[in-house]
Amino acid sequence: MHKDRRDFIQKVTAAALVGSVAPNVLADQSLAPVDIQTWRNSMKNRGEQEEEILILGAGISGLCAAYELAKQGVKYKILEARSRPGGRNETIRHGSVIEEFDRTSICDFSADRNLYFNVGPARISTQHKRVLSYCNEFSIPLEPLINDNRNTYFSFSPSHSLKSREVYASQRGLIASTLAKAIDQNLTSHLIPNNQNQHMLEMLKSFGELDDNFNFTSSTRAGVAQDSGTFTPEQGIEPTHFEELLQYIDKWKNRIHFEQSLHQQSVMLQPKGGMDKIVKGFTSRLPGNIRYNSKVLAIKRSTDGAEVTYENKHGRIKTITAEKVIVTLPLTVLQDIEHDFSNEISQEIQQAQYSSAGKIAFQSKRFWETNEQIFGGISWLDTDNAQIWYPSAKFGSDLGILVGGYIFGGPAGDRFAQLSEYQRISDAISQMSLVHPNTSDHVYAPVSRSWKNTPYSKGGWSSRPPIEAFSHCDGPYVFSGDHTTYLSGWQEGAIASAHRALELLDL
Amino acid sequence: MHKDRRDFIQKVTAAALVGSVAPNVLADQSLAPVDIQTWRNSMKNRGEQEEEILILGAGISGLCAAYELAKQGVKYKILEARSRPGGRNETIRHGSVIEEFDRTSICDFSADRNLYFNVGPARISTQHKRVLSYCNEFSIPLEPLINDNRNTYFSFSPSHSLKSREVYASQRGLIASTLAKAIDQNLTSHLIPNNQNQHMLEMLKSFGELDDNFNFTSSTRAGVAQDSGTFTPEQGIEPTHFEELLQYIDKWKNRIHFEQSLHQQSVMLQPKGGMDKIVKGFTSRLPGNIRYNSKVLAIKRSTDGAEVTYENKHGRIKTITAEKVIVTLPLTVLQDIEHDFSNEISQEIQQAQYSSAGKIAFQSKRFWETNEQIFGGISWLDTDNAQIWYPSAKFGSDLGILVGGYIFGGPAGDRFAQLSEYQRISDAISQMSLVHPNTSDHVYAPVSRSWKNTPYSKGGWSSRPPIEAFSHCDGPYVFSGDHTTYLSGWQEGAIASAHRALELLDL
Repeated sequence: MHKDRRDFIQKVTAAALVGSVAPNVLADQSLAPVDIQTWRNSMKNRGEQEEEILILGAGISGLCAAYELAKQGVKYKILEARSRPGGRNETIRHGSVIEEFDRTSICDFSADRNLYFNVGPARISTQHKRVLSYCNEFSIPLEPLINDNRNTYFSFSPSHSLKSREVYASQRGLIASTLAKAIDQNLTSHLIPNNQNQHMLEMLKSFGELDDNFNFTSSTRAGVAQDSGTFTPEQGIEPTHFEELLQYIDKWKNRIHFEQSLHQQSVMLQPKGGMDKIVKGFTSRLPGNIRYNSKVLAIKRSTDGAEVTYENKHGRIKTITAEKVIVTLPLTVLQDIEHDFSNEISQEIQQAQYSSAGKIAFQSKRFWETNEQIFGGISWLDTDNAQIWYPSAKFGSDLGILVGGYIFGGPAGDRFAQLSEYQRISDAISQMSLVHPNTSDHVYAPVSRSWKNTPYSKGGWSSRPPIEAFSHCDGPYVFSGDHTTYLSGWQEGAIASAHRALELLDL
Repeated sequence: MHKDRRDFIQKVTAAALVGSVAPNVLADQSLAPVDIQTWRNSMKNRGEQEEEILILGAGISGLCAAYELAKQGVKYKILEARSRPGGRNETIRHGSVIEEFDRTSICDFSADRNLYFNVGPARISTQHKRVLSYCNEFSIPLEPLINDNRNTYFSFSPSHSLKSREVYASQRGLIASTLAKAIDQNLTSHLIPNNQNQHMLEMLKSFGELDDNFNFTSSTRAGVAQDSGTFTPEQGIEPTHFEELLQYIDKWKNRIHFEQSLHQQSVMLQPKGGMDKIVKGFTSRLPGNIRYNSKVLAIKRSTDGAEVTYENKHGRIKTITAEKVIVTLPLTVLQDIEHDFSNEISQEIQQAQYSSAGKIAFQSKRFWETNEQIFGGISWLDTDNAQIWYPSAKFGSDLGILVGGYIFGGPAGDRFAQLSEYQRISDAISQMSLVHPNTSDHVYAPVSRSWKNTPYSKGGWSSRPPIEAFSHCDGPYVFSGDHTTYLSGWQEGAIASAHRALELLDL
């Protein structure tokens, strides 16, 4: 910028602020300040020490702990059972090998960096400042991940699907119409403050798209009559009356207000090119101290700390000692490992309950964009496979990866875990066909993963709140991972717990 | 894909479809089928003819008409008063010259293709199939344009701004709480069908985040108490009680349900790199028959059609004759041109009312992303400048273009048109500072446009519904442009009207 332009702005700014009303924006209580550098500076500098920290697990929590230890100049080693880092942060591409307990498959997507499948975490909440801080520190470009799109479908039964926009519009219509009539009939004056009946009625007409008699009969939000709206006035359709859907409330009550929540949002974020850019952000900055294919067998206390026994990639049994051990392994995985953790921790490991989440995806021509104007977002199915995800990026390109099923867990997830690959594919195509009848003409190159059926994960995320014992050291052990926080299933929890682990170690 | 994999899918698909429930998705009435190739094929092939069509105006409508005439092998010429095509579809970048009636400025953005400002249309609705079809035909990559982001601000007065998420959550809370209490007190049983009181109550608790007594007292949707939600259970904040905002209803009633509409959506689309990619899509495929800097002075009937007088770039007065003329010029611009249109058209031109829309933008470090986790979306101000738009792309990059004001029209737009450049900048910084107190530390390189104060536009879009006379030829004249449709202000209207113009010409 030319200096004179800069001067101009500064003069203008000074002028603008003279007499401007004092800002009175409420502090956003929801956003605890999380600045990684500030946190880092708050940690004691440990200086040169011989002590070495052992980290079990190279998922996001373990990698973050390692990265921060490296920043502090503390030595560390990581044992990781898989041949890759990231844990559940896994992005599948052309040639990726997908191993489960009873099967191994190879991803058949075309070799194209835009064709990938985030089979684990796939969205970042804008509230998750720790994750965002690391993306910023690692210069990882982020792009929108569309969570809420009214062009998608919402199913109430296998034979009853509506466009999402019709569902949302008609729910608002029913609520607004019922309340407006009650107000109009003077039934609620004791419930409306300051006799604001007229304001409420005016608001409700707009909120629910009501007519002058407070009926919800025609809705342009739900859709417009064919050929109207361009050369003739826009004419709303007669939408589904939501009261007819009330009987199915158990089927939709947990889905329909989804995008209102703080962690789910109508638009979220994703790293361009795959969620594992975050994994690479850490590993590319770590000096190669991760021992892959190293399966922990036993963890026990020793005189100076702890001794961990593991099987290395050659099948040999090894032991490693460390003064402190950061245990990031999922509780379900710890069930199979001999240990001498405290009673509280041991008991929690025994009682662990993990979601049986899974996903299946296909490569396909983007028929959802060209034929149905669906650009990103989710269709909600009333079947085991629960959700279809449409890609949020590279709109208009020829091919895309369609997540044909995102099974959260529960009995559906347990079933998914046990299905043959053939049956997973068959079921997914069948269920997608309920809203996209010609699915089978388009999709190919299927790839699936059940996290419950995946070694070294044995589940999606912990369904139980974290126990208090995770917030203390247990002798030489400190526990980390999203399951030790209330952000179970979120990378933000994994990172927060890694920071806490380092605080607890009091280096 | 290997043949055996393809065979596998086909077998699986066949198996999947046996016994699958017949699809019963409602036809989406809102989406009239608009396939450009189908439309094109429906047009009579005119073959070789001497006749030449004259198009007045190289905005989207004129360019689309020219492109389709060229496809039909019909000769055409375009007269365009500006030195560039596109009309209101204008993307401003480093070095762009912005001319208004009383000023000329040069855009001082850094020379970077990611730093651009769509000063005219800036979003494409997924409902606008004609625009999408051309983007597809021209291989224009599209990306999300975020319209609704709960991390932005919503202002009720200069001293009263809230986070959008608090506004939306508390409105739902008030509506749900009032209705739920009325239902619980048995006041509305005549209004609730089939005695579904319990289902309604269950729905409303979730819809409005109510407690067991149907009160809206604590909301995690509005935000969470600082430091809660990670190592302690998430604790909602006590949100603003929306009933206190009812008194300001005139200030928010037209904004708060904005993203529910069919043309506005929580996520829309934009061409990567600027809206003028659509203009370039047309012009790069037109064989150079656009006469720029050609200002129409008079349009009159002649024996064989019409004669158009214009001033060329050298200031010389020229005439051009044509059997048919497609008139795409804004009605406000036609007010200054001598013509012999029908009485109905002439009268409409006299009565034309156009919005005085305008925008102002600044280059800036992306403080809204790094400091406030605002990734795209709009803040709504209760001041003349009405909206702040945050960039929807290139998240995490250093610089972005912040639309510091989008003035829709009305008295605010009239004021904006008359302000000096200095005052526009000063006002924008002052108004942005109401929600971003440190705005002046960051923003520079301002650029603004008032469409009302812009030659050859003289307004943003027509505020009146199109008259019936636009749907017929008027002797040698046929009228086109978004103002001749109910999609005024949308490129979709410009394209639809171009198609209609060609149908009316009956070539």
